[in-house]
Amino acid sequence: MTPQTDPGAGAAVKAADRAHVFHSWSAQDLIDPLAVAGAEGSYFWDYDGTRYLDFTSGLVYTNIGYQHPKVVAAIQEQAATMTTFAPAFAIEARSEAARLIAERTPGDLDKIFFTNGGADAVEHAVRMARLHTGRPKVLSAYRSYHGGTQQAVNLTGDPRRWPSDSGTNGVVHFWAPFLYRSRFYAETEEQETARALEHLETTIAFEGPGTIAAIILETVPGTAGIMLPPPGYLAGVRELCDKYGIVFVLDEVMAGFGRTGEWFAADLFDVVPDLMTFAKGVNSGYVPLGGVAISGRIAETFGKRPYPGGLTYSGHPLACAAAVATINVMAEEGVVENAKRLGESVLAPGLAELAARHRSVGEVRGVGMFWALELVKDQETREPLVPYNAAGEANAPMAAFAAAAKKQGLWPFVNMNRTHVVPPCNTSEAELKEGLAALDAALSVADEYTA
Amino acid sequence: MTPQTDPGAGAAVKAADRAHVFHSWSAQDLIDPLAVAGAEGSYFWDYDGTRYLDFTSGLVYTNIGYQHPKVVAAIQEQAATMTTFAPAFAIEARSEAARLIAERTPGDLDKIFFTNGGADAVEHAVRMARLHTGRPKVLSAYRSYHGGTQQAVNLTGDPRRWPSDSGTNGVVHFWAPFLYRSRFYAETEEQETARALEHLETTIAFEGPGTIAAIILETVPGTAGIMLPPPGYLAGVRELCDKYGIVFVLDEVMAGFGRTGEWFAADLFDVVPDLMTFAKGVNSGYVPLGGVAISGRIAETFGKRPYPGGLTYSGHPLACAAAVATINVMAEEGVVENAKRLGESVLAPGLAELAARHRSVGEVRGVGMFWALELVKDQETREPLVPYNAAGEANAPMAAFAAAAKKQGLWPFVNMNRTHVVPPCNTSEAELKEGLAALDAALSVADEYTA
Repeated sequence: MTPQTDPGAGAAVKAADRAHVFHSWSAQDLIDPLAVAGAEGSYFWDYDGTRYLDFTSGLVYTNIGYQHPKVVAAIQEQAATMTTFAPAFAIEARSEAARLIAERTPGDLDKIFFTNGGADAVEHAVRMARLHTGRPKVLSAYRSYHGGTQQAVNLTGDPRRWPSDSGTNGVVHFWAPFLYRSRFYAETEEQETARALEHLETTIAFEGPGTIAAIILETVPGTAGIMLPPPGYLAGVRELCDKYGIVFVLDEVMAGFGRTGEWFAADLFDVVPDLMTFAKGVNSGYVPLGGVAISGRIAETFGKRPYPGGLTYSGHPLACAAAVATINVMAEEGVVENAKRLGESVLAPGLAELAARHRSVGEVRGVGMFWALELVKDQETREPLVPYNAAGEANAPMAAFAAAAKKQGLWPFVNMNRTHVVPPCNTSEAELKEGLAALDAALSVADEYTA
Repeated sequence: MTPQTDPGAGAAVKAADRAHVFHSWSAQDLIDPLAVAGAEGSYFWDYDGTRYLDFTSGLVYTNIGYQHPKVVAAIQEQAATMTTFAPAFAIEARSEAARLIAERTPGDLDKIFFTNGGADAVEHAVRMARLHTGRPKVLSAYRSYHGGTQQAVNLTGDPRRWPSDSGTNGVVHFWAPFLYRSRFYAETEEQETARALEHLETTIAFEGPGTIAAIILETVPGTAGIMLPPPGYLAGVRELCDKYGIVFVLDEVMAGFGRTGEWFAADLFDVVPDLMTFAKGVNSGYVPLGGVAISGRIAETFGKRPYPGGLTYSGHPLACAAAVATINVMAEEGVVENAKRLGESVLAPGLAELAARHRSVGEVRGVGMFWALELVKDQETREPLVPYNAAGEANAPMAAFAAAAKKQGLWPFVNMNRTHVVPPCNTSEAELKEGLAALDAALSVADEYTA
């Protein structure tokens, strides 16, 4: 775990990257990717030996941290015996991963369709819902992210949708509850829930209930801002879905597998969807894997009639073996419980304390290892510290905040006017406190940009 | 490599599969997946100790066969050092994989955008083309497969598209050349090429050249039937693309990385596309990986302007390390040359010989380790042995053929009225001959269904 210094090697990695790697969501000439030499637990380091505490879990997926020895060993063992095999066969790692996942999913979501990641999980969930209902439309929320492929990105309710919006993928966006920036002029959670449900039911009525295959929601919206739905909202959506024969899809790609201090965020709200998508935490992203957990009723639709979808690496043995090991590690080491406990005992009070002292913090919200700090120019008006989808100079305050955090040895998750505190779910109390101290210093920089 | 017998373990794997695994492209209650215990090289075996010679390469992806020791070791080593890391960083395995791929791609396709598989590679290629040109439509061919996500499956020109056809994804299908079943009443390859190009140019004219972002073609269509484009066709498409400012995308997900006896099938035809998709053979599917190779001109479009697409596992270190090892193994062990040499010296004459003796064989076509046998009721009329997209009783002749092959210890690739001979690219001469003998016996069963 001692970072070694080898700037020459780092320069070579960087040079080949700049020559040949085309990066996600980026203007290729304007980025300067850090060359990372190694990673372990909650830390990673560059080739100069600079070490960072990771408050991002990568892209919120390394729920057990980097290089967990038991999962590494399981990958190595599976590689030695059966690295890959085609999806039409019964394979031990595939069967066992499906069994362990089904054991933990809520309700009767007992059939698992494996994909390579979250986006294609969402694609397939939507296909299943359309074919199950025979209806074309899907309702999704603004302030959401569901993946980068065509259907998934059209479901997305953030600016990443705009350039690829086909206007034609049968998606209708509605507003989900978010009291801090209520679209419903609500002043209490009860009001927000009631009005958001009324908004949704009216939208259903005006779109035509008989045209709507599915409603898809991130159980707790992730990149869009970690807005926990207020009490009663998800249960209310479940009721609307039942009332109108609509398939209820919960997207737990980011919120699932321990992130909220429960195996699935749906458990927090005691709600059972018809389909649930997952990825990321299922095996901490050690090998690409995602999937859809399918209720008995929808699985039955494809009992005698072929499900028209698939992919070469569905149920990839190496990815499934990593999932088996990850789930077992999480169970044995109490990783989910750790997220819950330290979320309550360290992050909740620690972040509240920061909010009380920093005028740039408008709201702190979250649960488990899944927290957002909404940074604002003015706590009264709640004007965001930077405008929606800001870039370049307009984004300078958030860039300054991020740079300050890195200077403190903390790698922060930054999206628009928010920083998210999303460390691995097995991060220790001491590490969390180290991170909170670094955040404290970085927020002082953000404070300078307030009104 | 000696199969061990353990029917009890196989039954347990099968039971958990049936309880919890939802399979691709299948009616879940009507399938009976074989439980596979192990695999090595060109063989795999079940829990009863029955061993099969694999003429499918899984789903045409294990181009170096199963469990290549050097690639297994490379995966184990990468797992020990850096299993995963987020896409925004420069990572050694990622840089090196991109460099090795760019070194081999034709022309100036020197920037690599990594995805999880072929479908999302196609999704991103189409997005790049649309944003590069500012045009909405994409032309693709009937008799094609481009993946299972929404945009990719809409591009597909086989029945797997039908249930998910949104009618709205900007896709227009045209006919590509296929002399054996010419859509153009052609009698020679020259005629087929000229008429197919005329058909394409007329289609472009009637759709409006200024509305067409891209033309996408599998360099050699794979699952749709391994129809090598006749001389001059791809060069002609390249010219049409240049003439009308259309992005030319070649999909080499199946045809690339040695399958045709060249690193890329484009090399067979001396054509350079603007974008090229890959997956499967890039690392023999040992870890899910795909990508898009991008020309300088298109990469430049996203130099100062962000490319609006991405995914959590883009450039996954474990997947990239498997690609590095696979490419190095293919180079060191002459795997591409093996495919070329044995394709010419064993498969071409061996399959021609079978065709001469079996009245069920209408045509043999292919190159390298990429061959199709078109099975027919009648060699004169060329009526397919089973109707297009047949299922159940209508598909009995092909089911009987497949069962006969398996009885001979050969696992065959079967699609509609065809069997494809698509073994690993490092299959030996002796193994190919063993497979040809088994095919011989199975074709005798197919012969019984001819007119």
